[in-house]
Amino acid sequence: MTTSDFGSSVFAGWRSSAADGWNDYTNHEFVRQLGDGSLPRSSFLHYLVQDYVFLIHFSRAWALAVVKSESLEEMKTAAGTVDGLVNHEMQLHVQICKDAGIIEEALYSAEEAFENLAYTRYVTDAGLSGDFLDMMAALAPCVFGYGEIGNALKQSAAKDTPYMDWIDTYSGTEYQEVCTNVGRMIDNSVAARLGDAPEMSPRWGKLCDRFRTATRLEIGFWDMGLRGE
Amino acid sequence: MTTSDFGSSVFAGWRSSAADGWNDYTNHEFVRQLGDGSLPRSSFLHYLVQDYVFLIHFSRAWALAVVKSESLEEMKTAAGTVDGLVNHEMQLHVQICKDAGIIEEALYSAEEAFENLAYTRYVTDAGLSGDFLDMMAALAPCVFGYGEIGNALKQSAAKDTPYMDWIDTYSGTEYQEVCTNVGRMIDNSVAARLGDAPEMSPRWGKLCDRFRTATRLEIGFWDMGLRGE
Amino acid sequence: MTTSDFGSSVFAGWRSSAADGWNDYTNHEFVRQLGDGSLPRSSFLHYLVQDYVFLIHFSRAWALAVVKSESLEEMKTAAGTVDGLVNHEMQLHVQICKDAGIIEEALYSAEEAFENLAYTRYVTDAGLSGDFLDMMAALAPCVFGYGEIGNALKQSAAKDTPYMDWIDTYSGTEYQEVCTNVGRMIDNSVAARLGDAPEMSPRWGKLCDRFRTATRLEIGFWDMGLRGE
Amino acid sequence: MTTSDFGSSVFAGWRSSAADGWNDYTNHEFVRQLGDGSLPRSSFLHYLVQDYVFLIHFSRAWALAVVKSESLEEMKTAAGTVDGLVNHEMQLHVQICKDAGIIEEALYSAEEAFENLAYTRYVTDAGLSGDFLDMMAALAPCVFGYGEIGNALKQSAAKDTPYMDWIDTYSGTEYQEVCTNVGRMIDNSVAARLGDAPEMSPRWGKLCDRFRTATRLEIGFWDMGLRGE
Repeated sequence: MTTSDFGSSVFAGWRSSAADGWNDYTNHEFVRQLGDGSLPRSSFLHYLVQDYVFLIHFSRAWALAVVKSESLEEMKTAAGTVDGLVNHEMQLHVQICKDAGIIEEALYSAEEAFENLAYTRYVTDAGLSGDFLDMMAALAPCVFGYGEIGNALKQSAAKDTPYMDWIDTYSGTEYQEVCTNVGRMIDNSVAARLGDAPEMSPRWGKLCDRFRTATRLEIGFWDMGLRGE
Repeated sequence: MTTSDFGSSVFAGWRSSAADGWNDYTNHEFVRQLGDGSLPRSSFLHYLVQDYVFLIHFSRAWALAVVKSESLEEMKTAAGTVDGLVNHEMQLHVQICKDAGIIEEALYSAEEAFENLAYTRYVTDAGLSGDFLDMMAALAPCVFGYGEIGNALKQSAAKDTPYMDWIDTYSGTEYQEVCTNVGRMIDNSVAARLGDAPEMSPRWGKLCDRFRTATRLEIGFWDMGLRGE
Repeated sequence: MTTSDFGSSVFAGWRSSAADGWNDYTNHEFVRQLGDGSLPRSSFLHYLVQDYVFLIHFSRAWALAVVKSESLEEMKTAAGTVDGLVNHEMQLHVQICKDAGIIEEALYSAEEAFENLAYTRYVTDAGLSGDFLDMMAALAPCVFGYGEIGNALKQSAAKDTPYMDWIDTYSGTEYQEVCTNVGRMIDNSVAARLGDAPEMSPRWGKLCDRFRTATRLEIGFWDMGLRGE
Repeated sequence: MTTSDFGSSVFAGWRSSAADGWNDYTNHEFVRQLGDGSLPRSSFLHYLVQDYVFLIHFSRAWALAVVKSESLEEMKTAAGTVDGLVNHEMQLHVQICKDAGIIEEALYSAEEAFENLAYTRYVTDAGLSGDFLDMMAALAPCVFGYGEIGNALKQSAAKDTPYMDWIDTYSGTEYQEVCTNVGRMIDNSVAARLGDAPEMSPRWGKLCDRFRTATRLEIGFWDMGLRGE
């Protein structure tokens, strides 16, 4: 399989600048165990509860991206993502957790693991300290990484892994289109601010730094999931 | 006609603390001319273009309210409002302006009148400096005022005013439900932070100040509309 | 007299992009009356009270610039400016107003004129929506404009104008050094983000827009001062 | 020794709500080794480099508190703290690190440990999402904890510990006065927003949660220091 860049040359550039970290993230032991089905159910549920709290703050981060939008495309894409997260993606977690006997209010008030808190607050702070691009570089590893992992697992996963629902979600058309739309928008947003040769801008290195840091924080998130409670 | 408080005792309290200003705002000459149809078309279009720019920043403000949410109800209401504004209400303006020969890109880049800029930036700064309630007190005059004006004009307007579309929008079920939902949420948000007797909290007076300032800024907005370009 | 650019080529570029507005701002009727002494005392005091409130929010804006700093120079310059404003410049206003019978608590809680509120909230919102450069472009007209006006009046003012203290403050070494330091920092900040030919960056035009808008808002502030209460 | 509450009944209340965590934080193994001198030099230097980066973001957080101030006392205290941190406290780190051959630019660009990043971004996000009190509850464990630890070590430390400079800094008059001033301001800030019986406010529990989370993050910071690179 060729690794897709979701049509975004900016994402392709950021990813190649974070090559080692990206590999550790997308081929993490947690991912492998999702695929072969060996991940303990308790680890998966721990991850899912934490991921619900993550999505709350991830939604806040995308809402901050709306605040920082400078074009109609940016505003519509970011607003649509907030709506999708709050009113749809979070509901998947709610449903699976409900089936496991965990109600939504419990999810909403779950104690955040450090690794969880570290990542989401890094993203919102990127928005407070920088501009729209700083946020995108910090959000990108999550958005595209899950799309890439979903695609890879779709091809390699054991047919009987109990985590096929998860794999279907992120390899599915709907999520893959999110990746493509966000990728197109990021390319346009970068061009609108840094021009046609963004790698030549002094900001490029800083954006790669943000992407790398966020990738490190994603690895920490998997570590936390694997460790369980 | 009895003036509705959209089921929100908090709004009722804020409104009564701003009585004179509220009257000047909701019975403004601009409103009267919308109702009897005497408002010059050029004033209306000028207002509409400015209101489009207003809605961009109003959407940014509601997005900041998502960032500042502390409950599921707050997050869902604010996120739904952003989506409604960006993907629906702004489209009404786009359509009317298009019929008048003004394309959306022209709207998006229209030069903001001072009175416009003053109001929206006051709201976003309220979010930066204060908490969720500070934002609600600054947003409330717009949300509820338009609902109240729409209702009043629906009863009193001349049948042949060319502005019946505008009146129908704000007196219509959809917008009135927005008011009711936001009103319910505000009452809950206030109770969650200030308790059951919010008027006794030291913060009550400050929130009334914010509501009054925002009401003054709404009056300025009508003045600007009336003045035309 | 040659108009100084305080050693900042970025400021020189922004100013020339806002030529007409800049002239209206720095040669405003309010400025002329400060120089020839014809400005009514009541207008000056009204201006001073509003300017005190302005400085509170201007300090908040420079504090937000600390939050958004990305180098030691930016952090130290912005932090030093906050300290200078809060603990020194505002005290000048306090002293003059005290001599006129207005105590500091009255200043702190004075009702803001629209024109005042519009400018300062535009600046803080620039910080929320953009990056460090967006803030600098919005702050620059105030910082450098007062330095330029102070210098011009120092040469042209009537010897017996009652506003010589004001003129001395802004033409004095201390304030002029603030301008030079901020100018140097802005040039470095722009180079660190946009490279050595910032005018070629797609962001240059947006920064010029911010500078122009802030210059318009400065003109509004003088209008407000001249109008009195 | 009686544990001081620096004259702040609010701090005393928050601390008692976080009793176990507070004990783990102030009597951490890292603290014990500072006192008896057994802490490896490499651990101390690692801690110091991370603490320098911490102070950059801690300064940003106090600057955000200036942005969120609602009284002269809050503004002056927060602005003075930013100035003290940026222009003084950080210089102590610079000097000690310089003696160990680490230059300031290296400090400024050191890679942040997760535990470091987690704490500071949690604080700035508390400012973005909440109000001035939310920030104070998140900043308090650092401000007062170091004052308390400094006092305790001053009494118990081995005379020949190589870390007496560190102990003198935080037990010294200057730092202790910072604690007293911040404590007084926090009590006033809480009274101004929650009234005279703040424990009865619905917000009290949320502020205690923030204090507890920040205390957990302080424990993580010591763990990181002890672990070394």
